[in-house]
Amino acid sequence: MPELRQNMATKEWVILATERARRPEEFVLPGSEREALPPYDPECPFCPGNEEAELETMRMPLNTQQPWSLRVVRNKFPALVPGNERTRVFDGVHRSMSGVGHHEVIVETPRHDTCPALQSVDEVQRTLRAFQVRGRTFLEDPRVEHVIYFKNHGVRAGTSLIHPHAQLIALPVVPHQYRVRGDEARRYFDDFGQCVMCRMLHDELDAALRVVVASEHFVAFVPYAAFSPFHMWIAPRRHGADFLASTRAELDDLGSVLHQVLRKLYFGLNDPDYNYIIRTAPAREVGFEYLHWYLALVPRVNQSAGFELGSGMFINTALPEDSAAFLRATPADGAGSADGPDVV
Amino acid sequence: MPELRQNMATKEWVILATERARRPEEFVLPGSEREALPPYDPECPFCPGNEEAELETMRMPLNTQQPWSLRVVRNKFPALVPGNERTRVFDGVHRSMSGVGHHEVIVETPRHDTCPALQSVDEVQRTLRAFQVRGRTFLEDPRVEHVIYFKNHGVRAGTSLIHPHAQLIALPVVPHQYRVRGDEARRYFDDFGQCVMCRMLHDELDAALRVVVASEHFVAFVPYAAFSPFHMWIAPRRHGADFLASTRAELDDLGSVLHQVLRKLYFGLNDPDYNYIIRTAPAREVGFEYLHWYLALVPRVNQSAGFELGSGMFINTALPEDSAAFLRATPADGAGSADGPDVV
Repeated sequence: MPELRQNMATKEWVILATERARRPEEFVLPGSEREALPPYDPECPFCPGNEEAELETMRMPLNTQQPWSLRVVRNKFPALVPGNERTRVFDGVHRSMSGVGHHEVIVETPRHDTCPALQSVDEVQRTLRAFQVRGRTFLEDPRVEHVIYFKNHGVRAGTSLIHPHAQLIALPVVPHQYRVRGDEARRYFDDFGQCVMCRMLHDELDAALRVVVASEHFVAFVPYAAFSPFHMWIAPRRHGADFLASTRAELDDLGSVLHQVLRKLYFGLNDPDYNYIIRTAPAREVGFEYLHWYLALVPRVNQSAGFELGSGMFINTALPEDSAAFLRATPADGAGSADGPDVV
Repeated sequence: MPELRQNMATKEWVILATERARRPEEFVLPGSEREALPPYDPECPFCPGNEEAELETMRMPLNTQQPWSLRVVRNKFPALVPGNERTRVFDGVHRSMSGVGHHEVIVETPRHDTCPALQSVDEVQRTLRAFQVRGRTFLEDPRVEHVIYFKNHGVRAGTSLIHPHAQLIALPVVPHQYRVRGDEARRYFDDFGQCVMCRMLHDELDAALRVVVASEHFVAFVPYAAFSPFHMWIAPRRHGADFLASTRAELDDLGSVLHQVLRKLYFGLNDPDYNYIIRTAPAREVGFEYLHWYLALVPRVNQSAGFELGSGMFINTALPEDSAAFLRATPADGAGSADGPDVV
């Protein structure tokens, strides 16, 4: 018998189609093609030697005499640009705004053929620090209402560039989805006197059925109403609306947890494509007591179709409890897969 | 300079990334592989000879002595099932419901290798009639709150079965997205004293910039804030919340318009994958004066990524006006592409 579940933070329903369910093992891919990649590609715009200095906004280490280990550059084909004023046109049923904003790319490493799961934990932590540094700079621009921090890994996750990179986009509007979710979070707070995410973390830790990794500062879990197999949320135990307000210790802990779950995905499922997104409060809402930031991780193991587009609902063919149990049982160190992802 | 636009019916913002924009011609696919398909596949569950009679809920013509031209069957791997009661469990932050509902498949034709663009207009109209007949039957079940009518064409649209088929799913809940959009439509009606879709149709016909086909009863247009290239809405001129209340004349006219735009996509872009969805009012809201049903058509010409997942916003790399002009200029009869979709 299928089951519907509602995520109380988003109020979205999901169908858990147990009749058509696949076991977590059935999502294991035939093998990663990562091994066939060169560590350096002379055609790659992110490989050393192809840097365009005028696009660079940040590098690590700061000393430009040393080779870089991470670079941040303005996107060459930006979705939004910093020039010009933010102007609104309200003309009857048509509303538009000039496309002002910022769009930058974090080149996570000089090495072409790697990915966060295969990098050191320090490298993953560094990317999160770069998000924080650039996000803070973006918010100095008074036209910025919201920043989206994200990474696309693999073609099914929407990237064609192999070289490991993440992105951040500063928007001159608050997305409608954030308005809606903010309203739902406020309503929960008003009804129950607590933050819905705090309550969720409490219950998840209590039940321990869907937790994948619990660290000092973060809990990585498969949400009760996860919308796809292995869909995960990584949320800070300390209540707070603002990703940018995390301490260095918290950020490093998040990097460590993210590294672990990405390695579990890599070794457990053979390098699936995925997106991760940091969902933090809009710029002017960081003090709102009912908002709680988190990182969402979405392995792209199935394809949304007409039903999803037409309803905003998802059909999940894996039970969240099974996804979590599979990931808990998959060692993050690749043990049991001595030859790497081809042997599981 | 990029531009942001807001769709006043959904309140969703879209980024029109004109800096990274591609001309409509750049979305033309290398060629359709449809010609290599057999008209009959003995392994296909939808081809004649492989019918499972116990799954059938409807056929055309009704006379079972004649060969069928369309069949409706219960989905063998249903997302929801009719058995059992609709029960709700509210347990703290966890809300669930038994997965009751209906999930059927419309086998649109006995022929394996075709698609709506290559079918006759009568065959497309027949599918819409089957939606109506089965939708009405679903709504006799008091547990049904909403019905989603949709078609997935091609792998990128989420289907692996080639044989032309459409689907309908009857849900025991109103999707959250419908709650939100209903609220927005009501707010617009309260503020401006008219239905937002009626206003949109009026303005689109007036401007004529984004209209693709205008018939007696329907207008097919690329929305002002279209979220992807060639994204179209086909809306009835007559205001109404309920797809099931369309007359036979209206339904046939919709079939004709849908057939024309699908042929324009087929010949103009070389058989792109797409989804279409009929967005009608929830079962108990069909009398609401601020709701207006429509059909949404989404060619799957680009891939959503972390930004879209993390913001609910889309980056459209084609101007809606350009998409519409391209489709208007593409003949629906395949003229100018005498050899079919391989020559454009």
